[in-house]
Amino acid sequence: MRPSGRTPEQPRDIRITRQFTRHAEGSVLVEFGDTKVICTASVENKVPPFLRGQGQGWITAEYGMLPRSTGSRMGREAARGKQGGRTVEIQRLIGRSLRAAVDMKALGEHSITIDCDVIQADGGTRTAAITGGCVALVDALNFLVKEGRLKTSPLKQMIAAFSVGVYKGTPVLDLDYPEDSEAETDMNVIMTDKGGFIEIQGTAEGAPFEQEELDGMLKLAKLGINQLFEAQKAALAG
Amino acid sequence: MRPSGRTPEQPRDIRITRQFTRHAEGSVLVEFGDTKVICTASVENKVPPFLRGQGQGWITAEYGMLPRSTGSRMGREAARGKQGGRTVEIQRLIGRSLRAAVDMKALGEHSITIDCDVIQADGGTRTAAITGGCVALVDALNFLVKEGRLKTSPLKQMIAAFSVGVYKGTPVLDLDYPEDSEAETDMNVIMTDKGGFIEIQGTAEGAPFEQEELDGMLKLAKLGINQLFEAQKAALAG
Amino acid sequence: MRPSGRTPEQPRDIRITRQFTRHAEGSVLVEFGDTKVICTASVENKVPPFLRGQGQGWITAEYGMLPRSTGSRMGREAARGKQGGRTVEIQRLIGRSLRAAVDMKALGEHSITIDCDVIQADGGTRTAAITGGCVALVDALNFLVKEGRLKTSPLKQMIAAFSVGVYKGTPVLDLDYPEDSEAETDMNVIMTDKGGFIEIQGTAEGAPFEQEELDGMLKLAKLGINQLFEAQKAALAG
Amino acid sequence: MRPSGRTPEQPRDIRITRQFTRHAEGSVLVEFGDTKVICTASVENKVPPFLRGQGQGWITAEYGMLPRSTGSRMGREAARGKQGGRTVEIQRLIGRSLRAAVDMKALGEHSITIDCDVIQADGGTRTAAITGGCVALVDALNFLVKEGRLKTSPLKQMIAAFSVGVYKGTPVLDLDYPEDSEAETDMNVIMTDKGGFIEIQGTAEGAPFEQEELDGMLKLAKLGINQLFEAQKAALAG
Amino acid sequence: MRPSGRTPEQPRDIRITRQFTRHAEGSVLVEFGDTKVICTASVENKVPPFLRGQGQGWITAEYGMLPRSTGSRMGREAARGKQGGRTVEIQRLIGRSLRAAVDMKALGEHSITIDCDVIQADGGTRTAAITGGCVALVDALNFLVKEGRLKTSPLKQMIAAFSVGVYKGTPVLDLDYPEDSEAETDMNVIMTDKGGFIEIQGTAEGAPFEQEELDGMLKLAKLGINQLFEAQKAALAG
Amino acid sequence: MRPSGRTPEQPRDIRITRQFTRHAEGSVLVEFGDTKVICTASVENKVPPFLRGQGQGWITAEYGMLPRSTGSRMGREAARGKQGGRTVEIQRLIGRSLRAAVDMKALGEHSITIDCDVIQADGGTRTAAITGGCVALVDALNFLVKEGRLKTSPLKQMIAAFSVGVYKGTPVLDLDYPEDSEAETDMNVIMTDKGGFIEIQGTAEGAPFEQEELDGMLKLAKLGINQLFEAQKAALAG
Repeated sequence: MRPSGRTPEQPRDIRITRQFTRHAEGSVLVEFGDTKVICTASVENKVPPFLRGQGQGWITAEYGMLPRSTGSRMGREAARGKQGGRTVEIQRLIGRSLRAAVDMKALGEHSITIDCDVIQADGGTRTAAITGGCVALVDALNFLVKEGRLKTSPLKQMIAAFSVGVYKGTPVLDLDYPEDSEAETDMNVIMTDKGGFIEIQGTAEGAPFEQEELDGMLKLAKLGINQLFEAQKAALAG
Repeated sequence: MRPSGRTPEQPRDIRITRQFTRHAEGSVLVEFGDTKVICTASVENKVPPFLRGQGQGWITAEYGMLPRSTGSRMGREAARGKQGGRTVEIQRLIGRSLRAAVDMKALGEHSITIDCDVIQADGGTRTAAITGGCVALVDALNFLVKEGRLKTSPLKQMIAAFSVGVYKGTPVLDLDYPEDSEAETDMNVIMTDKGGFIEIQGTAEGAPFEQEELDGMLKLAKLGINQLFEAQKAALAG
Repeated sequence: MRPSGRTPEQPRDIRITRQFTRHAEGSVLVEFGDTKVICTASVENKVPPFLRGQGQGWITAEYGMLPRSTGSRMGREAARGKQGGRTVEIQRLIGRSLRAAVDMKALGEHSITIDCDVIQADGGTRTAAITGGCVALVDALNFLVKEGRLKTSPLKQMIAAFSVGVYKGTPVLDLDYPEDSEAETDMNVIMTDKGGFIEIQGTAEGAPFEQEELDGMLKLAKLGINQLFEAQKAALAG
Repeated sequence: MRPSGRTPEQPRDIRITRQFTRHAEGSVLVEFGDTKVICTASVENKVPPFLRGQGQGWITAEYGMLPRSTGSRMGREAARGKQGGRTVEIQRLIGRSLRAAVDMKALGEHSITIDCDVIQADGGTRTAAITGGCVALVDALNFLVKEGRLKTSPLKQMIAAFSVGVYKGTPVLDLDYPEDSEAETDMNVIMTDKGGFIEIQGTAEGAPFEQEELDGMLKLAKLGINQLFEAQKAALAG
Repeated sequence: MRPSGRTPEQPRDIRITRQFTRHAEGSVLVEFGDTKVICTASVENKVPPFLRGQGQGWITAEYGMLPRSTGSRMGREAARGKQGGRTVEIQRLIGRSLRAAVDMKALGEHSITIDCDVIQADGGTRTAAITGGCVALVDALNFLVKEGRLKTSPLKQMIAAFSVGVYKGTPVLDLDYPEDSEAETDMNVIMTDKGGFIEIQGTAEGAPFEQEELDGMLKLAKLGINQLFEAQKAALAG
Repeated sequence: MRPSGRTPEQPRDIRITRQFTRHAEGSVLVEFGDTKVICTASVENKVPPFLRGQGQGWITAEYGMLPRSTGSRMGREAARGKQGGRTVEIQRLIGRSLRAAVDMKALGEHSITIDCDVIQADGGTRTAAITGGCVALVDALNFLVKEGRLKTSPLKQMIAAFSVGVYKGTPVLDLDYPEDSEAETDMNVIMTDKGGFIEIQGTAEGAPFEQEELDGMLKLAKLGINQLFEAQKAALAG
């Protein structure tokens, strides 16, 4: 039933490659099937003005798509002189989600910026970015420990995300672009490895969705996200 | 337990005043307690470039806050030269939500812009904007009928929204600012008057939230939003 | 002769409502007939860089129109990414005018920003903004006294403004939009309650104007503005 | 009494040099003493969108200062990414003033842009720009006639401008920078060569000004501006 | 003598990988040692306004660096709201160079945009971008032939580029970052596979350079660039 | 053969006028035939953030064209809200070139900004700007000595620049606009008065250029630039 031939609860192939580029304190290529995102974590020894002198750290995220990561070329945001609404919405979501992974007090006065740049898009770029960005974040936190700037990692919990949706009347996991563009409902679910929800964003694209469909999607999400935690763990062990 | 003395399932006073200003095709002042938003609906006889020639209409929204709608003055976005990320995120949510109210084919090649300008903020501006914006939208659709530009109103269903959250461990409805700034979880629920969900956005501000809390919040939201539909109906009958 | 049926020297109904919104140190709704402007005064404990360390204060103004305050919707300046020329011109006029009300040395190192946001426009928005803004300013100065940050109010004099013009050959006071768009000459006159001029801006829209017409307009302005001082006084006594 | 040793009614040396640069349809260097402004008039065979198809023309103006036209270097507006408020205010004044010189219907569907670029500033740049810009405009209108695109020049009247002010209690004509920065009142007067007023902008910089001072300044302005019309005439005859 | 242990005339390892991403008509990952640039070529069926109706095509280029492609994080240009001067300079160079590869008349009314996005930087990003961009361009031209939109490829010649410089007194080929940041002279040489120069940009970073040094650098460049043409050929044959 | 009747090695008339405007520490009008550029040098007692506390100075340049310096009017960059790519490229070249004239350590913590504003363009504006800008820079350095802020001038060497090109198959010096727009190759050569190269930028506009043509152009450039050093010397002696 799904264009890719997957079963409803079957995600795409997940690949997480650490140390993908060499300069960043954390650098990950995350692939959810044909969706490919470079996530880097950059550490700075200072915090934004609104946090100065409070003895706590900050984590923020920025998101971008290469102009030809998509089927037809999108104008380059740097050339147009501003980030689009979708970009702003996504990078705020990534930042909020990844802040939940870390104890800000324990991080001390350090900032970490997670840059998520999509080099190839096929649906699910924001969930891939959160999942891969969390691995890059862990590497950056470990870098701070290794450098002696922190005694122990301030990581509280891992964060991962999947999209779920209602496609042709059936809840499905990890929508690719052909599904995403036709789904009746699209929901992004961000969870911790302890089983709690960090964020849920569900949108009816066509008809409204009902409680039952919501329950079905959340069930799929929980099962799927557990596989992401496995993939993160394997990558970090590698 | 709530700073305002309300019970968990008790919303603030809801007031919807139509014809608040005189130029717009729909003009509403919506008040959720001390949160006050002017929502106007403006009709144009054209559609954006990406829809031209397809025989369908478009609905979009813009959101702004007067600089001193808040406790301390915020810089004016027009003077700073760009809309902030929060503004962009909110106006995209309002636009998506209100498009669900209307049959775009039946609207024909008309655009309706819903401007939501907050003149006083006390939490819940986006849910107030959606709820009041829908009434302004209905007035604008009726204007098109009255002017003979449409035969019948293309309204499919009413849309309304409430925030719910977990405050000091208890799910509560319609958070005001003191609650909002301390809540563990904050969720915006947008529904149709037929009982379906249009959008759910739930965010853990502190600890993650569990399925049970989610269920509790959604239950409150459903009960509360029904009262909003009553208030919309009363205003439109007025 | 006037579209509204008013006599040449007759202003529209003037209403000044204090404490219109609750957060600002001064908050006024000013109405010149159907022209309605929210004027708030916001106090900050610092001055712009060019005044630092000089022991004096600063007053500045910003102006905006809600997109649908006018007959057809104007693009939102925040979305377009810059303030238009008319906006800039008006907010500079308001700022200059209101600075004349206050002894900057006596104000000390405080800044006051007057935000004037037009919610409904029918001509004369800038004169209404100056007149209402001055009342908001007085409230903000009194707030500083009440808070113990100043010993006495640094108010030197009240400021108010009316437009005058030559409409169908006759000087008239307080032009509304139908008059404004057809007037041969349009002049904004800003005065102190001691009878001096703070600013005069007269523009020939069609034919040039002569000394005699200028004299006629200024005479009307003086008479009219005295009524504004009465209205300000009544509001402040209220 | 005046820093320059001039009498109150004595303007600075006025020089108007036509054909100052070679590409523009009108190109004038205007000098009011040490204030030097290049005014060019550029003709285009089209009008702005809001005038299309109405069979009439348009005149607009832009103003700029070279970064080091002033005593200390001002940031370049092109580099800062926007024109400052003062620039916007001045170029709108120049445009309004020069539109009064021309019969827009007779101009047909042509646009003329007057660019006024200050290469050295010593007070009075806007009045110099209007006075020199009018000469460049006349040359551009004559160019249209010479090219056969218009039968006769649509010039209705000449426009010129002087600043007047109250300096140390005395009304004076054509303020230079040392006077301008200390004057109690500063007024720009724009007139036609038939003796009518096009625009009057008077601002109290310190104390308010009285009717008597206003009358004194306007009297000086009228006498002075007549000398500008002589200078324009001589330049155009040259 | 060189930090990398290379001989003066020895380039880094060159790798050109075609079909690196799947959406673009041409997509190449080019690597000059640790410098890695994704070059995509995007075809559109239209030309910019200044070329419309002239029966010829256009090629343009855009350049960007991922924020953490460098040793310390650079601010994202999209977030800052404009492209920096270095970016603009580089993308103009790439565009000019690659236009030399193609017969614009034979290209017909098609535009091709070459996007060069640096994912890892170690010196020489602009020469890598030109060399890899030319391969992506060839693929895009062949796509137009394969699609039947052109009969034959309008490719005139291949273009490739190397940097040369004077490092510690000796001319060297293909500077990496440690060399680049200390070189006395840095020169980018862009050539055709027929041996002509397309562009030479040589800059003395410290002491001026002499004719003899120039000759030495150009000699190295010619030899080196021939190896790039071999690499391009091998990639296109692959 | 040349449109102007000049021989291939013949430059246009070069005129360098010092003290062209009165406010800047250095102010030069430079004319290469009909190309006229005002170059001012402005001194500040501070350096950009990246140099603070390092005991050295900085020189930077900005470039602009008056809108009607050219045959058809160009949009004003300040009004469009950004500097074009060509502007950015040119001002970076001027800045790099003039930094080579000065010993930054000996300059101490001073910044000098060279503003180059084209009032009339006929090709070669950037080479005129460098040549005239260097004279303005010398005046600014001497000002620092005269004011006692430096003991001796930190000038290391004079810098001057000419364009050369291949026009109808022949290398020519100092291209004017008619030549520039038809030349096969265009090269800007920046040299020191000791005979070294500071920058070479050669671009094939049509066919690639060969080593022999390059040698011919460089030979012409060297001869021509010596004449510029004479002109600079004469102006500085004047």
